[in-house]
Amino acid sequence: METAEVADQVVLQERAGGITAPRGFRASGLHCGVKRVKKDLALLVSDVPASCAGTFTQNRVPAAPVVVDKEQIARSPFMRAIVVNSGNANACTGVRGMEDARAMIGVAARALRIHESEVLVSSTGVIGQFLPMDRIIQGIIASAQSLAKEGGGEAAEAILTTDTFTKQCAVETAVNGVPVTLGGMAKGSGMIAPNMATMLAFMTTDAAIAPELLSQTLKRAVDRSFNRITVDGDTSTNDMAIVLANGLAGNPMLREETDPGFEEFSQALEHLLVRLSRMIVMDGEGATKFVEVIVDGAASEADAVKAARAVASSSLVKTAINGEDANWGRILAALGNAGIPFTPEETEISLGDVPILRKNYRIDFSEEEAARVLHEKEITIRVQLNGGPGSATFWTCDLSKEYVAINANYRT
Amino acid sequence: METAEVADQVVLQERAGGITAPRGFRASGLHCGVKRVKKDLALLVSDVPASCAGTFTQNRVPAAPVVVDKEQIARSPFMRAIVVNSGNANACTGVRGMEDARAMIGVAARALRIHESEVLVSSTGVIGQFLPMDRIIQGIIASAQSLAKEGGGEAAEAILTTDTFTKQCAVETAVNGVPVTLGGMAKGSGMIAPNMATMLAFMTTDAAIAPELLSQTLKRAVDRSFNRITVDGDTSTNDMAIVLANGLAGNPMLREETDPGFEEFSQALEHLLVRLSRMIVMDGEGATKFVEVIVDGAASEADAVKAARAVASSSLVKTAINGEDANWGRILAALGNAGIPFTPEETEISLGDVPILRKNYRIDFSEEEAARVLHEKEITIRVQLNGGPGSATFWTCDLSKEYVAINANYRT
Repeated sequence: METAEVADQVVLQERAGGITAPRGFRASGLHCGVKRVKKDLALLVSDVPASCAGTFTQNRVPAAPVVVDKEQIARSPFMRAIVVNSGNANACTGVRGMEDARAMIGVAARALRIHESEVLVSSTGVIGQFLPMDRIIQGIIASAQSLAKEGGGEAAEAILTTDTFTKQCAVETAVNGVPVTLGGMAKGSGMIAPNMATMLAFMTTDAAIAPELLSQTLKRAVDRSFNRITVDGDTSTNDMAIVLANGLAGNPMLREETDPGFEEFSQALEHLLVRLSRMIVMDGEGATKFVEVIVDGAASEADAVKAARAVASSSLVKTAINGEDANWGRILAALGNAGIPFTPEETEISLGDVPILRKNYRIDFSEEEAARVLHEKEITIRVQLNGGPGSATFWTCDLSKEYVAINANYRT
Repeated sequence: METAEVADQVVLQERAGGITAPRGFRASGLHCGVKRVKKDLALLVSDVPASCAGTFTQNRVPAAPVVVDKEQIARSPFMRAIVVNSGNANACTGVRGMEDARAMIGVAARALRIHESEVLVSSTGVIGQFLPMDRIIQGIIASAQSLAKEGGGEAAEAILTTDTFTKQCAVETAVNGVPVTLGGMAKGSGMIAPNMATMLAFMTTDAAIAPELLSQTLKRAVDRSFNRITVDGDTSTNDMAIVLANGLAGNPMLREETDPGFEEFSQALEHLLVRLSRMIVMDGEGATKFVEVIVDGAASEADAVKAARAVASSSLVKTAINGEDANWGRILAALGNAGIPFTPEETEISLGDVPILRKNYRIDFSEEEAARVLHEKEITIRVQLNGGPGSATFWTCDLSKEYVAINANYRT
């Protein structure tokens, strides 16, 4: 096990497993027939009602589960279960789609003998087709019967679409001296045949934390993780990140940011989400390189985020990385498009440990050294704007011919 | 010659040629040695001082010629000549780059025996390298000697980079009963080895129009043409669009928007810029399809522009078009990301003449008919939001594997 020193006093420990690593969570994942062969239905259950918070897609065409879950959480932010299907997004499906999403909740509630207000639903896959509800209902009933403490991995598998590997992780920290565990699973933001897909993330913890504080904490952590990755700049109709906190660790309930232990919990959640974010980018469609963009010296953190996003989103930068070219001009031009004030003459750019642009446009780097860095699978672009205290990190992948092939020829 | 009915009373006539079609303009284009073989230096001269207006890149890292030209026009908006080199962008070149840009102006002014305040300069090509000034000076002197009424085509050729064809056109209209001609040339917005390139456009007219009104008219026309095309979403350090109006047609000087004939001039300029814009998109790097996105029924024109841009910029939509797939889900999801209010259930989408999405998510179209439309080289995506009077058109191309190949492997 690895130990990471996140801040001065906070110690995080990486743990094996995912959503069932914290106390009192069980899960299952199985094939019910939405997809042809692969697992397509996941169920996550907490032994006791858990504080719940969620962030949802900003897309103006939200899928039915997004609409239903927002209503559920607004009505009462305490949940026992989340049911997720892959293979069909239940998006752009109108009134019937809403009925189907609610029916999934109803079936899960009855199978688990809990109240309908305690269940959330999530879908990912093709857009514009109705769910095969007979199969899904059978699947929910079967998955309720196969819930297990060891089921986290199967659940993580059942939410995937074009992902090439499952994404789960867990960490342990101490909240006011009490050990608490956080776990999570996610699916990638690539696109799937024949329509676009989704970023889904489900997190669990045995920490005790009030829903309102949990919601603020989740939003901030999402802003620094899932909102700082980009694969192709599109936002899906189904994106969501949900966290359940069941309190079984027994720490005194966190209610305010000033409560002892809150900082530890907050950093652990951010750490978990950053790890899931990095996994999503590493599994970006057609990606051959993982790229970390670090911007320092901006006027503010907000400006640094804009600058880092501009570099990470530039097709020109992403194709240059794919081609292993130390193209500082494309990086500088992308910064110029970020809409933030900065002085080009003061700007410095490095690839890994190789400075490729110094102040006043000095560019006397060794092509061999740059080539060595660019040949790696993981590449860091570091930008120093020398104009203030603002820093931010963004994660992306390169833009490859395979990305286009996957997204143009997904039917053949 | 084609005759296009642009509005109720205005008749435009397409003309052969480009920047030298209007009275009193001569041009030349030659190879001076910035590039290895191809033409790389263009000169455009008006027989008399011309009202001048320009729009320039919003990139925060503007190239030296952009900075110098803004100063020149601000000092006195009457110009006689524009000198343009391709192959080297004179961008990110600091103090020496500024000196070189001013030196190009000085050499051109002496060769043409005009004042330095009457010359503009423009560059496109690689970033971060100093211009080979000896060759450029020789080139400017030679090009001043080879100016000709027939030189428009050679000039249009000399400003190209990765473009696969020259882009020029001309139109004739009547301003208050007086026939006037407008001509233009452009280079594409693709990227070039080993750095990003640029959209350049130079327009000429023999109409008489005051600089201030010309500037307003240009800005509005650019907003509806060059600002409504997207190839890869990046904005170069060197982009500029400049118009010269030398008044030799003899119409009464246009000074106010209410002056008779202004509307005709304004529409002719917009028509010219839209034609150049379409040519730029058709020549987008790796493009196999030309895509027109028309949005109607938005709350306002500004909202329609946002919606059309979101569809035209979506990598998912562009790869679907490349793969000839009638993917209404990606189009609808892109609209959902546009940041404008609309009702998905009211939205209708057509490809060419084939409705692929009707109200309330009805999707009973024939795959064969959609395939027929998508197999064409030019494809129209028409979106009806049914929510107001706002309309806008955007032009883009598909995203192909060739785009990535060009931009990843431009060095090999």
